[in-house]
Amino acid sequence: MKVHVLDIRVRYGETDCAGVVYYANYLHYFEAGRTEYLRALGTAYRTLEEQGIFLVVAEARCKYLGRAGYDDQLELYTWVDRLRPTRIDFRSAAALKGAQRPIAVGHVVLACLEASGRPRRVPEELVRRIELCDGPAWARGP
Amino acid sequence: MKVHVLDIRVRYGETDCAGVVYYANYLHYFEAGRTEYLRALGTAYRTLEEQGIFLVVAEARCKYLGRAGYDDQLELYTWVDRLRPTRIDFRSAAALKGAQRPIAVGHVVLACLEASGRPRRVPEELVRRIELCDGPAWARGP
Amino acid sequence: MKVHVLDIRVRYGETDCAGVVYYANYLHYFEAGRTEYLRALGTAYRTLEEQGIFLVVAEARCKYLGRAGYDDQLELYTWVDRLRPTRIDFRSAAALKGAQRPIAVGHVVLACLEASGRPRRVPEELVRRIELCDGPAWARGP
Amino acid sequence: MKVHVLDIRVRYGETDCAGVVYYANYLHYFEAGRTEYLRALGTAYRTLEEQGIFLVVAEARCKYLGRAGYDDQLELYTWVDRLRPTRIDFRSAAALKGAQRPIAVGHVVLACLEASGRPRRVPEELVRRIELCDGPAWARGP
Repeated sequence: MKVHVLDIRVRYGETDCAGVVYYANYLHYFEAGRTEYLRALGTAYRTLEEQGIFLVVAEARCKYLGRAGYDDQLELYTWVDRLRPTRIDFRSAAALKGAQRPIAVGHVVLACLEASGRPRRVPEELVRRIELCDGPAWARGP
Repeated sequence: MKVHVLDIRVRYGETDCAGVVYYANYLHYFEAGRTEYLRALGTAYRTLEEQGIFLVVAEARCKYLGRAGYDDQLELYTWVDRLRPTRIDFRSAAALKGAQRPIAVGHVVLACLEASGRPRRVPEELVRRIELCDGPAWARGP
Repeated sequence: MKVHVLDIRVRYGETDCAGVVYYANYLHYFEAGRTEYLRALGTAYRTLEEQGIFLVVAEARCKYLGRAGYDDQLELYTWVDRLRPTRIDFRSAAALKGAQRPIAVGHVVLACLEASGRPRRVPEELVRRIELCDGPAWARGP
Repeated sequence: MKVHVLDIRVRYGETDCAGVVYYANYLHYFEAGRTEYLRALGTAYRTLEEQGIFLVVAEARCKYLGRAGYDDQLELYTWVDRLRPTRIDFRSAAALKGAQRPIAVGHVVLACLEASGRPRRVPEELVRRIELCDGPAWARGP
């Protein structure tokens, strides 16, 4: 699998008084996208944690390019564009369903840690299954 | 339609440091349930707001009876058990998928308002379509 | 101490697209109020948890009586009006600073549990220090 | 004013099941910091909005360098390191109170917009009052 697509319906409580999704809430969406990406790959993140393997956010970035409001249907695209020995670079793009125009694009670097907090190698099973890619063309920006 | 069932997957950011869904987040789930209940009825809440009809929370109650954690699949049951001229009493129950044992049961009273904030009658269309009921037996409690 | 008052400034991300504090977020405020009430009493809740004593929400209720928006300054009143062997009934009232008119009033029942999840008696130290009261008159409602 | 410092107490509901502040919640803290920075400057953001001037997040970045948990007291440092005709670059750093070691450092670019959504110049009053700076040395990273 290269790109995973998750449908998300914007909840009332995810909007703010400007009438749109609050900027921090895209990070919740991105996390939901990563969870489903990993499940689709065959490795539920919850199972990794039970094995004492933690993927912890080391860095998060998001560019806001459009607006989404209450009840909008979003498609959240998730892919990986880089693997380092102890890090995974996740990319995300949120678009209105069917629109293929980015509302928000994200880049989240996960550090792989042991329960003790020490860095460890990304599990071989993940390295084997993740297919690196550049994501959908419309999400890449200028 | 009497009872609407919505599948919800618990997100990481919805849990707290006790390892379970934070108590306020069930109110987000209940709202998502009401949104889908109304949509299934044929009246998207977003459309009501566009018509200048607002359903505003006047009172919310929740009993916490069990635990749900990250990645758990919940079934959120939503129904209406009482209609007053300007109020709708929504009921909710969250259960682990397939378990039919309540984790949280809610009661949210919505007041129907005009854009000005003045109470108004619940739209006739809603009154006609809502089928009052007592909800699933397992959700009613002792 | 009978009633504890906490100042809270409404954050942008706590509002929703209706322009006011989202209904679930008052439960966050109530929790902040309980935390500071206990600290003022001399028993930080964090310390209780470190001792293996957990106060878990069994039931929460909130009535919404007014509106608060971004940047509003709230006073959050917190008191206890009932102690049972294994339960504490917390009450909360949020008002605009200086207004003494309730925007939201809450009632949260906490169950006292051991780490194992078994009910246990409310610590003697808390029972001794908590002064039961009915809260401010303006918060009691009709 | 160059750097504004805001005290923040971590709320229970801001943590996640890893026991620490959920990564998206730092963006709430950063927003609270920007609000207080602007107020300390003499221009409440709420007043700007009332004048039809909106500062909208165009881009947000956060590096996570440490851990904070329930009830921790944070100092949130906020400053501006760049002004462009229609953009303000805010920087943030969160540290445990007194520790001067960064737990999270942020960079949020705000675009100045009219109510119509069209870009407009940053108000002269803000340009005059903001003192650009590099922030505290300990927050700059290697």
